[in-house]
Amino acid sequence: MNSDRKYSRREHPEDSLVKINDRITIGGPEVVIIAGPCAVEGRDLYLEAARLVKKAGASILRGGAFKPRTSPYSFDGLKEAGLEILAEAKKETGLPVVTEVMDARDLEAILQVADILQIGSRNMQNYTLLREVGQVDRPVLLKRGFAATIKEWLMAAEHIMDAGNERVILCERGIRTFETYTRNTIDLGAVVAVKELSHLPVVVDPSHGTGRASMVRPVARAAIAAGADGLLVEVHQDPENALSDGFQSITPEEFRRLMAEVSGITTVIDRQIYRF
Amino acid sequence: MNSDRKYSRREHPEDSLVKINDRITIGGPEVVIIAGPCAVEGRDLYLEAARLVKKAGASILRGGAFKPRTSPYSFDGLKEAGLEILAEAKKETGLPVVTEVMDARDLEAILQVADILQIGSRNMQNYTLLREVGQVDRPVLLKRGFAATIKEWLMAAEHIMDAGNERVILCERGIRTFETYTRNTIDLGAVVAVKELSHLPVVVDPSHGTGRASMVRPVARAAIAAGADGLLVEVHQDPENALSDGFQSITPEEFRRLMAEVSGITTVIDRQIYRF
Amino acid sequence: MNSDRKYSRREHPEDSLVKINDRITIGGPEVVIIAGPCAVEGRDLYLEAARLVKKAGASILRGGAFKPRTSPYSFDGLKEAGLEILAEAKKETGLPVVTEVMDARDLEAILQVADILQIGSRNMQNYTLLREVGQVDRPVLLKRGFAATIKEWLMAAEHIMDAGNERVILCERGIRTFETYTRNTIDLGAVVAVKELSHLPVVVDPSHGTGRASMVRPVARAAIAAGADGLLVEVHQDPENALSDGFQSITPEEFRRLMAEVSGITTVIDRQIYRF
Amino acid sequence: MNSDRKYSRREHPEDSLVKINDRITIGGPEVVIIAGPCAVEGRDLYLEAARLVKKAGASILRGGAFKPRTSPYSFDGLKEAGLEILAEAKKETGLPVVTEVMDARDLEAILQVADILQIGSRNMQNYTLLREVGQVDRPVLLKRGFAATIKEWLMAAEHIMDAGNERVILCERGIRTFETYTRNTIDLGAVVAVKELSHLPVVVDPSHGTGRASMVRPVARAAIAAGADGLLVEVHQDPENALSDGFQSITPEEFRRLMAEVSGITTVIDRQIYRF
Repeated sequence: MNSDRKYSRREHPEDSLVKINDRITIGGPEVVIIAGPCAVEGRDLYLEAARLVKKAGASILRGGAFKPRTSPYSFDGLKEAGLEILAEAKKETGLPVVTEVMDARDLEAILQVADILQIGSRNMQNYTLLREVGQVDRPVLLKRGFAATIKEWLMAAEHIMDAGNERVILCERGIRTFETYTRNTIDLGAVVAVKELSHLPVVVDPSHGTGRASMVRPVARAAIAAGADGLLVEVHQDPENALSDGFQSITPEEFRRLMAEVSGITTVIDRQIYRF
Repeated sequence: MNSDRKYSRREHPEDSLVKINDRITIGGPEVVIIAGPCAVEGRDLYLEAARLVKKAGASILRGGAFKPRTSPYSFDGLKEAGLEILAEAKKETGLPVVTEVMDARDLEAILQVADILQIGSRNMQNYTLLREVGQVDRPVLLKRGFAATIKEWLMAAEHIMDAGNERVILCERGIRTFETYTRNTIDLGAVVAVKELSHLPVVVDPSHGTGRASMVRPVARAAIAAGADGLLVEVHQDPENALSDGFQSITPEEFRRLMAEVSGITTVIDRQIYRF
Repeated sequence: MNSDRKYSRREHPEDSLVKINDRITIGGPEVVIIAGPCAVEGRDLYLEAARLVKKAGASILRGGAFKPRTSPYSFDGLKEAGLEILAEAKKETGLPVVTEVMDARDLEAILQVADILQIGSRNMQNYTLLREVGQVDRPVLLKRGFAATIKEWLMAAEHIMDAGNERVILCERGIRTFETYTRNTIDLGAVVAVKELSHLPVVVDPSHGTGRASMVRPVARAAIAAGADGLLVEVHQDPENALSDGFQSITPEEFRRLMAEVSGITTVIDRQIYRF
Repeated sequence: MNSDRKYSRREHPEDSLVKINDRITIGGPEVVIIAGPCAVEGRDLYLEAARLVKKAGASILRGGAFKPRTSPYSFDGLKEAGLEILAEAKKETGLPVVTEVMDARDLEAILQVADILQIGSRNMQNYTLLREVGQVDRPVLLKRGFAATIKEWLMAAEHIMDAGNERVILCERGIRTFETYTRNTIDLGAVVAVKELSHLPVVVDPSHGTGRASMVRPVARAAIAAGADGLLVEVHQDPENALSDGFQSITPEEFRRLMAEVSGITTVIDRQIYRF
């Protein structure tokens, strides 16, 4: 891989620190935990989830208002109404918010609320969208395409950086393989690889990465042990009735256990969890 | 897979016939050959290529004006200037044109020229784009995502059809596997499978499907023998100096051999090549 | 890939012709059809199947006496009793027989009957077995490992050839990918690739390659159109009650249709089906 | 997956403890580290390596005397001479030894030395070999086939257990995917999955799992954090001159760092490293 790339560690040997709202830093010694439901499904449910994950130690909220769905007949998000709920949750908890942008035409509305713009796995090679988020002043969480090589993932980051926005956070979320027991195959080796090749921070999504709630906690521990700078975890008070991805969402109680275990792991590698 | 889908053959047992300009029909007994350079690189080169492939028997021209590229530093198409060249080639040859749309904001300009809108492999799950092309009155050639299952591919067609446009042509162009000798693994079984599951026509792109010029001709024969309704072939007068994908482009002379062989195959399966 | 290999076409530009019993040649202008049930399940059933496929135009019989099975509790073949049935079928029809060898210790018994030794997909990298069949005077049909690259497949052939047996017939039988609709993804591009890289003959197994009886016929046509030197087809009188792989076995009637269509394809590419 | 399998946790809810030489237990609270060169290359080199890894905290030695190789022209092990060196290393250090068996005919000689029999990735579906090692009284380390599903891997264990040997240790060593930056994609989710599905112990091979020496240490930490019962690590004094897999072998010094870090991880999850 060429070393004269903006993403390249050879160009930029020190770790990049991505600031969120001048308060939280991703990529430094502190590990950052992002949590919340997959989708914003309703006001009360979301506000309660936000309070619960904050109390358990999350420092950034996640929640989809615009949802890409394989079927046109699945729930695809509350859209603008979802953004309003995110704004309310943000105001109440004080936590920053990450939410997905699928269409450049939604960007203006999303920028009113989002502290981090998420590019989803299916849009990792939607280059027009990458260049759009490359032109705004907001950090971007770039999920790895489910069949993207490490090089293609880094080149997607390059599109954003080349357009002017260097605040890119990579997110490993599992790749598609022949294995069917898990929804995806989480590639923790990729975390190590991108840390070698790039100065950009990388977080791990153990929820999509496994597709099984029972596997989220041990994979979260492993991700931090491998050197990830943070986690993106789906938490839902009532996973069985979630409108999206309930099978891979953990309960707030399980999330508290996850936080305790991950906290233990960080101490061994001379890091600690960022506390808001 | 659910049978109450618009793409489903159970819903619609007869083959769908997609009309191009009220003249050419894709999905009927006649096999349709689409050919031309990967990208529109310049006026004279493209016009000559258009004449050559027409003379060899192609009935639709291909050529990219907007090109998705892994690297932001690669040639990404002539854009509006490319569309003008396509318009000129179309006027001169009389052949309809297929070209890729990557961004809904380019759609108005592309609709001035394109007789078929191409959705590229990397955008197969760009649902906002699918819905945009679902709202216009123009056939859509939907390339299979390079890591999309057959079901996901058909559901991408469903997004377009559900938005109102039922003139979808599927295009198998190879999938990503562990094999590295070929650029992709052409999945001719998928041609047979989608014919069973869906009434939509399906064409095959042996150029991307193999990534090797020497393999295009035999794979083209096999595609038609398997039941494909057409081919999408990259032809370039000077493959070694092509700005995009020269290694998989065949020369006009090789294309003539391909046409002769494919023509032979069609007679065995009670079809024939459409002649413009 | 190195060109100083025994399998390499650069070393040996002309196609290798593998003689079976001094009568049938695989790799020449004639296409050879191998057919029969997946496993030898019983005397009467097998003898009837042998007669039917011979009548329909097959020139070599297939049938497993020793069957590798994922589960230790599945039917794993009649073993020696199966070999006796194969011997009887061979005597009655006069057709040569191909059967799988899984263990070098069975080789002596199998050599009493088999005209071609089959190495199954799961044993493609069982190098001790490869070297054993490399030391006997009998053609070897080497199935591609279901996750073997083209290079690894050719190197497995090299193990056999290096041990002294140059009569190797390659067999493409589908590879493992992310797709789950088909049992395997048939890689017809690989047929073209090995013909370029190697002088060895290559046949295609559309039954394992698709895992769906309804797809066998069109994929068989495509394989021959791509340049395969033969086919290996599972045929069973009563697929629903087969002890092994019934879902991918075609009936004798469907096999007759396959033969007619494949025969048509051969004429277009200046070949013909070998008739016993 | 059926629950009435010998490997199944539903049948046998408690973790299986596999005893090595009545001294070391794999699958209990203590994490077991297996280390040494990929292949036994020579007496002095191997004896020194054995001393170094013992001193650094390994409690079992690894080293191949019989090596499966893709090319028939690569170094394939010292065979009987290699076994003698293993015997000497074992005598000198007192540590048990694991070595690969590729051919049932070598088993008698290997049983004179090996405390654990290794079944390599390429032989995971060599069922005759699985049944052979299922009939001896010696623990078996069963590497996952590089393209085996979790279910197929557990069914391979079932073949061994059904033949009479229940002392099976699973070993995750990476799977084959589209990614080419790493030699394999280490599947740490599979460690969690087999712990849920089975009572058998599971160890991880970060050397083959990544194919890059620089990635071994962080992946080793992650494996233990995910819940693995041990590690299998390639260590070589002079990786650049190793006859086999030097690019993925770490130095004794790097191995000492690995031991220190992994030891830290174990304390967080209420385990500890077994010390011989």
